[in-house]
Amino acid sequence: MSQVKKIGVFTSGGDAPGMNAAIRAVVRSGLYYNLEVAGIRRGYEGMISGDIFDMDRKSVGNIIQRGGTILKTARSDQFRTPEGRKTAYDNLKAHNIDALVAIGGDGTFTGANIFSQEYDIPVLGLPGTIDNDLAGTDFTIGYDTAINTVIDAVDKIRDTAESHDRLFIVEVMGRDCGLIALRTGIAAGAEAILIPETKTDVDALFAHLEHARKDKSSKIIMVAESGEAGNAFDIGRQVKERFPQYDTRISILGHIQRGGRPSCMDRVLASRVGVAAVEGLIGGRKNEMVGIVNNEIAYTPFEKAIKHNVEINEKFLKIVEILAI
Amino acid sequence: MSQVKKIGVFTSGGDAPGMNAAIRAVVRSGLYYNLEVAGIRRGYEGMISGDIFDMDRKSVGNIIQRGGTILKTARSDQFRTPEGRKTAYDNLKAHNIDALVAIGGDGTFTGANIFSQEYDIPVLGLPGTIDNDLAGTDFTIGYDTAINTVIDAVDKIRDTAESHDRLFIVEVMGRDCGLIALRTGIAAGAEAILIPETKTDVDALFAHLEHARKDKSSKIIMVAESGEAGNAFDIGRQVKERFPQYDTRISILGHIQRGGRPSCMDRVLASRVGVAAVEGLIGGRKNEMVGIVNNEIAYTPFEKAIKHNVEINEKFLKIVEILAI
Amino acid sequence: MSQVKKIGVFTSGGDAPGMNAAIRAVVRSGLYYNLEVAGIRRGYEGMISGDIFDMDRKSVGNIIQRGGTILKTARSDQFRTPEGRKTAYDNLKAHNIDALVAIGGDGTFTGANIFSQEYDIPVLGLPGTIDNDLAGTDFTIGYDTAINTVIDAVDKIRDTAESHDRLFIVEVMGRDCGLIALRTGIAAGAEAILIPETKTDVDALFAHLEHARKDKSSKIIMVAESGEAGNAFDIGRQVKERFPQYDTRISILGHIQRGGRPSCMDRVLASRVGVAAVEGLIGGRKNEMVGIVNNEIAYTPFEKAIKHNVEINEKFLKIVEILAI
Amino acid sequence: MSQVKKIGVFTSGGDAPGMNAAIRAVVRSGLYYNLEVAGIRRGYEGMISGDIFDMDRKSVGNIIQRGGTILKTARSDQFRTPEGRKTAYDNLKAHNIDALVAIGGDGTFTGANIFSQEYDIPVLGLPGTIDNDLAGTDFTIGYDTAINTVIDAVDKIRDTAESHDRLFIVEVMGRDCGLIALRTGIAAGAEAILIPETKTDVDALFAHLEHARKDKSSKIIMVAESGEAGNAFDIGRQVKERFPQYDTRISILGHIQRGGRPSCMDRVLASRVGVAAVEGLIGGRKNEMVGIVNNEIAYTPFEKAIKHNVEINEKFLKIVEILAI
Repeated sequence: MSQVKKIGVFTSGGDAPGMNAAIRAVVRSGLYYNLEVAGIRRGYEGMISGDIFDMDRKSVGNIIQRGGTILKTARSDQFRTPEGRKTAYDNLKAHNIDALVAIGGDGTFTGANIFSQEYDIPVLGLPGTIDNDLAGTDFTIGYDTAINTVIDAVDKIRDTAESHDRLFIVEVMGRDCGLIALRTGIAAGAEAILIPETKTDVDALFAHLEHARKDKSSKIIMVAESGEAGNAFDIGRQVKERFPQYDTRISILGHIQRGGRPSCMDRVLASRVGVAAVEGLIGGRKNEMVGIVNNEIAYTPFEKAIKHNVEINEKFLKIVEILAI
Repeated sequence: MSQVKKIGVFTSGGDAPGMNAAIRAVVRSGLYYNLEVAGIRRGYEGMISGDIFDMDRKSVGNIIQRGGTILKTARSDQFRTPEGRKTAYDNLKAHNIDALVAIGGDGTFTGANIFSQEYDIPVLGLPGTIDNDLAGTDFTIGYDTAINTVIDAVDKIRDTAESHDRLFIVEVMGRDCGLIALRTGIAAGAEAILIPETKTDVDALFAHLEHARKDKSSKIIMVAESGEAGNAFDIGRQVKERFPQYDTRISILGHIQRGGRPSCMDRVLASRVGVAAVEGLIGGRKNEMVGIVNNEIAYTPFEKAIKHNVEINEKFLKIVEILAI
Repeated sequence: MSQVKKIGVFTSGGDAPGMNAAIRAVVRSGLYYNLEVAGIRRGYEGMISGDIFDMDRKSVGNIIQRGGTILKTARSDQFRTPEGRKTAYDNLKAHNIDALVAIGGDGTFTGANIFSQEYDIPVLGLPGTIDNDLAGTDFTIGYDTAINTVIDAVDKIRDTAESHDRLFIVEVMGRDCGLIALRTGIAAGAEAILIPETKTDVDALFAHLEHARKDKSSKIIMVAESGEAGNAFDIGRQVKERFPQYDTRISILGHIQRGGRPSCMDRVLASRVGVAAVEGLIGGRKNEMVGIVNNEIAYTPFEKAIKHNVEINEKFLKIVEILAI
Repeated sequence: MSQVKKIGVFTSGGDAPGMNAAIRAVVRSGLYYNLEVAGIRRGYEGMISGDIFDMDRKSVGNIIQRGGTILKTARSDQFRTPEGRKTAYDNLKAHNIDALVAIGGDGTFTGANIFSQEYDIPVLGLPGTIDNDLAGTDFTIGYDTAINTVIDAVDKIRDTAESHDRLFIVEVMGRDCGLIALRTGIAAGAEAILIPETKTDVDALFAHLEHARKDKSSKIIMVAESGEAGNAFDIGRQVKERFPQYDTRISILGHIQRGGRPSCMDRVLASRVGVAAVEGLIGGRKNEMVGIVNNEIAYTPFEKAIKHNVEINEKFLKIVEILAI
């Protein structure tokens, strides 16, 4: 094992609040342990185009509280080709980078996994995605901020729902994973939650609405982007047809869920795994994602982390049912 | 002029943050001036169905900070008929209500105007709508909160736009009035603003985008609900076609704009006009909206207030152009 | 074991955001399982004075998002006497209450523990305190909200610190427990953290400041209410004397840390343990606190929960040192 | 009148949210009108030390939403001396700066006024201070954000006050000017407001509290930093002595009032006056503050603006009395 001397850090895939806190942690802990650190802009794209620059302690001053990523992010088709990865490797070598920290989600780690096997540059990953859909960490960086953003929005929507006695169908992010819908549904006091993981068909929702209390002044249905029952517009159309007595409205929260100042927990998580990644690289680790499981740092091989068959806690769905009484 | 003894207060039309502060001001100042105050639920609907109850000082305790309206709100078809208004009048009389404060927008005041002419119950109105589309007041209750909600959302969107170098088309409320889009467009640092009041056609936007700086990492286009150029989806489609080099996304902010804790200015405005309405009724005023113009209380006849041909300050559009350089 | 038929629920001690979500969960799940539920106002005070009332599903409508506690809270000297507890018991019996859910912190559970041993009314507790100082749960209800409130405040303070190149000493709550200071210190990018649990003397802080980078434009020192080194004013005085070159300011965050809309995580936590408490009482449990450990419901005897010798993760302090480089 | 070619912009005195939006507006509109723009760091200090740099459109990208000031701010003793001002002038000339925009409060404009009279460099000022204590503008940049920050904090405090039936004395900024306390007092539903401008002695407050409703669960007294009656601690001591039945607490909001993302209105105000300042300099104006009065741009000579004998609207105090019933 050769000694790590210069770490390259980058963000890739969808941005998530707390990515800047993670970058800061990698840069500062790298310098603390007397390594050099370089930033790579726009993920694998910048690696291929050579958009690489040296970072010092001031490069990451006053960013811990900022949403987005100062290193910018992108998806890269070129990196999916052997030629793209070769160019990337050459550029890293030209900058004397001998280890990488990749901040992102499953696409990021899929690329890192291949790269790590093809070339002699160890890569560790930090889970940066609002979806919380990675195995090997209880929470991903950005998830806590995103669910608070959703809750802020739904609290506002409930004000107007209460005033008008309306039923609102609120669509939140989570293409393959209902964890955003699940926790925010409980926290928003939702009537029902529709997520991709369960066979919540529209019939079940209808049965519930059929028996729902008539004296409730507002009702919130929380829907993940692509549950089995279709998206919020599909469901809304059906609810309107079947329950014309409700004043039904639809709200797609959309991209606001990706931005904003990171929550305290996201900054702490990002700081902890950022430091652990640098310490892991120094200790010879590679090809793993650094997460936190049961409040302890956990290293999980990329291929295992990206399978993201995150289990839905059935009890959570039961809680929604109980509390919607 | 008979002496006012009991005021009825209600909210009607779309809800707006600060309506509760206005209700509180009417109730508390009524009691301060030794009048009785009754609340009427769901606007004209409750007037017709008799959903009317006496309010005391505690009825409005701890509500100044709450979004929505504790009196609920609705639109009423029945009140558009002479029979509906007759029933409403009889119910008010049965409750000894001899004066009304109506909190709402143009629909609310249109109804109040007719009612005030048909029956001997004086009505004063408070401008409660997020749209800021009433003549006779510099600002309506709810507008300041709504524009801050928009700004919070667009700041989040900009985080992700910056990280990905994207162009975002953000649609805000304002069916006939572009004032939400106008101020938030300036405050969000928007590239361009499309509002119903101006002939901003898509060509003008295209010309701007053609010459826009290439080195800007994010671009926000702010669109009012139904500008001449169509809604955000229409415009988005055209931008995508014409400028495939931009990574263009659309965000409809929707109902979150109606809710939330009212801003300081909205609470102060609601408190001031609420007190002035009660003082106005005591002083024999009727059939007017109570607003604030140049920091002074102003009473404007309903028929004038609802014409809402609110002028767009041309200089504001110029400022957007200048600052988007 | 006699069957539980009617649960009494109350909040006691310092209020915490999420208490309302916990009350809602207890009431709704009680009704779901066909029990009756009564609310007791002002904790043990109301138990003694008989301020007890039946609750239904609407009693807890639209409160999940509210700070404070609708049942109000207080500390009770009378409940410390056998006579006080006898009166409380008689009142509970008079209302047919045969089980209790106590929401609060160590003082609350100390009282519950004694009461539970003296009388035949089973009590389960929910951890409601911003301090996170109870054993038997990873987090207490209110902690996550409080640390986000602190972060919001410190982000604002950093704006002004950066603009003026100032050093700020920020005091946060946590009389015997530095967990608020610890996580918020990491998340705020603090220079140093002073907490009761460690022998962080002023000398160590001075040594750090002596070697701190001169080119940092702002510095935040996070201090728990009563660390060994004294409070923020004491420390501020010493820093000013020793480092006259710094423009040093002090900020006591104070009571804002107790209020506000609960975060998503606090609402989920409160909902989960609220349901689990009702299920626990039905299952014959008593004299325990219901918490969440490693994402699973955990029941801990009161006497163990209140010892609150919560361990400080030493690695957290190391992270502060590393990232303050 | 010689043609303006290069504008220098700086912030001075206490920082205020919206200063960055003002800087952006000056830089962008300067460039729009084909002028050069230089930034001066740390106000008059940087003018004297020569900390001056050219700014382009990207220099002010993505800052409109940020609190604080990217140009930093300071107070300068040296600038009070003729020698200091001479050095400043020489530095400006060396950088070819032939006009200035000064963003700050009365201290800033006092300096600008003298400088403008001594040297042939025209200066226009933008009102940047949270205190709203300048004549010649309805609002200063930062005031709207600050009062919303206060309201956010007091809403949180009210949660805990309501839960515990407490009386809170909340101290807000405003050394010579009670405008923050006045509007936030109305918006927070305060029991009473103590501000420097009125002879609100403690006796009046006592009389009010003597007759206040016993059934109110919480009471907020809003106090400006240095009202006649002393600060919050002084008043708190007296209230505690006289009304031992109240559970009285004190909260000093402090420096959080200076920071944070600027509100929509502050950004719009800053953008409007920033553009107007550049247009004013081009048009030959000097030695004036650019404000907005009754929604129109207004230019006011510095010496008049800084007298800041801002009048308190007596009706506002009456409203507090009425609504505290």
